[in-house]
Amino acid sequence: MNTAKDETAVEYRAARDRILDEVTQALGAVDPGQVQALVEAILHADQVFVIGVGRVMLSLQAFVKRLNHLGIRAHCVGDINEPAITRHDLLIVGSCSGKSAVPVTIGQIAHRHGARIALIGSNPGSPLAPIADVFVRIPVRSRLELPDEIPSEQLLTSLFEQALLLLGDAIALMIAGRRGLDPAMLWLRHANLE
Amino acid sequence: MNTAKDETAVEYRAARDRILDEVTQALGAVDPGQVQALVEAILHADQVFVIGVGRVMLSLQAFVKRLNHLGIRAHCVGDINEPAITRHDLLIVGSCSGKSAVPVTIGQIAHRHGARIALIGSNPGSPLAPIADVFVRIPVRSRLELPDEIPSEQLLTSLFEQALLLLGDAIALMIAGRRGLDPAMLWLRHANLE
Amino acid sequence: MNTAKDETAVEYRAARDRILDEVTQALGAVDPGQVQALVEAILHADQVFVIGVGRVMLSLQAFVKRLNHLGIRAHCVGDINEPAITRHDLLIVGSCSGKSAVPVTIGQIAHRHGARIALIGSNPGSPLAPIADVFVRIPVRSRLELPDEIPSEQLLTSLFEQALLLLGDAIALMIAGRRGLDPAMLWLRHANLE
Amino acid sequence: MNTAKDETAVEYRAARDRILDEVTQALGAVDPGQVQALVEAILHADQVFVIGVGRVMLSLQAFVKRLNHLGIRAHCVGDINEPAITRHDLLIVGSCSGKSAVPVTIGQIAHRHGARIALIGSNPGSPLAPIADVFVRIPVRSRLELPDEIPSEQLLTSLFEQALLLLGDAIALMIAGRRGLDPAMLWLRHANLE
Repeated sequence: MNTAKDETAVEYRAARDRILDEVTQALGAVDPGQVQALVEAILHADQVFVIGVGRVMLSLQAFVKRLNHLGIRAHCVGDINEPAITRHDLLIVGSCSGKSAVPVTIGQIAHRHGARIALIGSNPGSPLAPIADVFVRIPVRSRLELPDEIPSEQLLTSLFEQALLLLGDAIALMIAGRRGLDPAMLWLRHANLE
Repeated sequence: MNTAKDETAVEYRAARDRILDEVTQALGAVDPGQVQALVEAILHADQVFVIGVGRVMLSLQAFVKRLNHLGIRAHCVGDINEPAITRHDLLIVGSCSGKSAVPVTIGQIAHRHGARIALIGSNPGSPLAPIADVFVRIPVRSRLELPDEIPSEQLLTSLFEQALLLLGDAIALMIAGRRGLDPAMLWLRHANLE
Repeated sequence: MNTAKDETAVEYRAARDRILDEVTQALGAVDPGQVQALVEAILHADQVFVIGVGRVMLSLQAFVKRLNHLGIRAHCVGDINEPAITRHDLLIVGSCSGKSAVPVTIGQIAHRHGARIALIGSNPGSPLAPIADVFVRIPVRSRLELPDEIPSEQLLTSLFEQALLLLGDAIALMIAGRRGLDPAMLWLRHANLE
Repeated sequence: MNTAKDETAVEYRAARDRILDEVTQALGAVDPGQVQALVEAILHADQVFVIGVGRVMLSLQAFVKRLNHLGIRAHCVGDINEPAITRHDLLIVGSCSGKSAVPVTIGQIAHRHGARIALIGSNPGSPLAPIADVFVRIPVRSRLELPDEIPSEQLLTSLFEQALLLLGDAIALMIAGRRGLDPAMLWLRHANLE
């Protein structure tokens, strides 16, 4: 009984520690100068759009939600009330491999509309790299297995998706700090039909 | 061969004619004065919110998308960038039976925030009826089987969902007409990352 | 007072009649043999996937929801629990112009995976036409203004989106009829957390 | 120039370290026995459903996506192809305060349908606590400011949402480990229309 309980505790702790260790490494490997460039691009844009697929899109949606709380007009591509993008806007593309078909296609269309492009991913060889104004590299395991990637024992690209959520929240904190926002005030912009 | 082909044609035509006949009856039974009241409520609101479940929500999402094209700030409850609702806003609840748990709950919360409530449904006995400022009745078959409902041979509440989509598009046309909007201009507000 | 009321009634009735007239024309122009081919493709597929953008995707989502009620495994591309597509599956692409970037891209990927492709649209010159196993034409106004399109005085491509929803519901009725499904039984497969 | 660069680096590192420190504390305070009970409930359920609001729902959606990759039938409440819940299923409710109206309403409906309920949240006094078969407590700052909560300097309930994503990924790792799943095999169940 006790042994089973102990084994269980070991099982959770091992999984938890592996994740925390990997995500700490991943965020530690991000260049603060690149993050800074992304923060500047967000603050100078009229509107921010994001695109990604699957769990990467979920992390970006969480980021968009928080940006709206901070008073920044941000949209997910595909949103019901998505406006037209213009050359005063920024599109943030999240893609670990930098090669997902839909984000690449959307990135190219946005570029043709004159919008600025920020790429968050692991692969500097992405087809979007040449048109990206900002590239924030999270150098983690992708399907490409680049030599300098941080290895991961997690499933699929979980590490990228986790690091992306936390990176977005770090950026939100940086923006709140610069603007001297009172966290309590954010509740006023928060959806209240819940 | 020819016979099979003829049977097929009969099959499609029968389904199509049944649907068109039912939806024509349903929209014919809507009181123009109630539609008018809804149009006024939309035009006087700072922002419009919508809530429904399942396919009803899909018809409302289509309506929200078109309202945004018309320059009206409209949101679906649950949207990533959903703002807080205020007493200057309107919540449109779509519910055939008027009894779906989540729309009723959201309607009551919105009412407490002082927002106006519009109900589109078939059941005048909905728990939201007493707090609704506007009620547009589409008197079609619900699970309640009220005596004055238009019967339907379609699946589930398909007739309500169809009538709701077309009603929303009729309202969009009415608003475009009043504002003298050039349809071609709408493309400028249309999402362009497709 | 009465006059204002009469004008209002005229306004709603005019919008409603225009929509019903256009949608009746559009569905009347659909070739029953093409619908039949789509029904067969759906019934022979292991799984059905759908893709479109904006309000077109909403009409397709309504269709997917109803197919699931009929016991057919159907998914929207981008769904949280979207499985991998295989050569035993069918992808239905909805696109009035047949040229929307994302649906075209997804259609090409699905084709490379060996899936069958059905295109529902207005433009026979779509880049997907050569790889489509089934093409159901709803010959309505697109941005391409093809000579044989049914004209529309509605906003943007509303007519296509309306016709698509009703076409999907006609197909659902055809499938329910063939399988001898008792409509009341559908409630058992219907989501019940509402 | 160098100074500005240094300040930037400080800014990112401070935000990042705060987040990693908080999330490490939060996951460290989770009782492994409660996680174990949740894993068992998931493995014994026919189907898993999840509900939450806002960013909490996004973290749960990421979890559902991964569960499907692991071969577990999991759905988000509100999904297009959401099936009916039965007494053989499990509903996981995520709510930091345990009081969000929609999740509480859905939890009560699921309970009436005989489904098992798992609650992940910070507040043991949630109205769902009495009907929850499993409660996994992440004791972090909620709007209730319970005395034993881990404090957070982040915005709103970011810490809960982050911990929830990572907890879900820890559970996914535990399940993959028990089932001896080869991570590479997961790509076969992964959506491939991207």
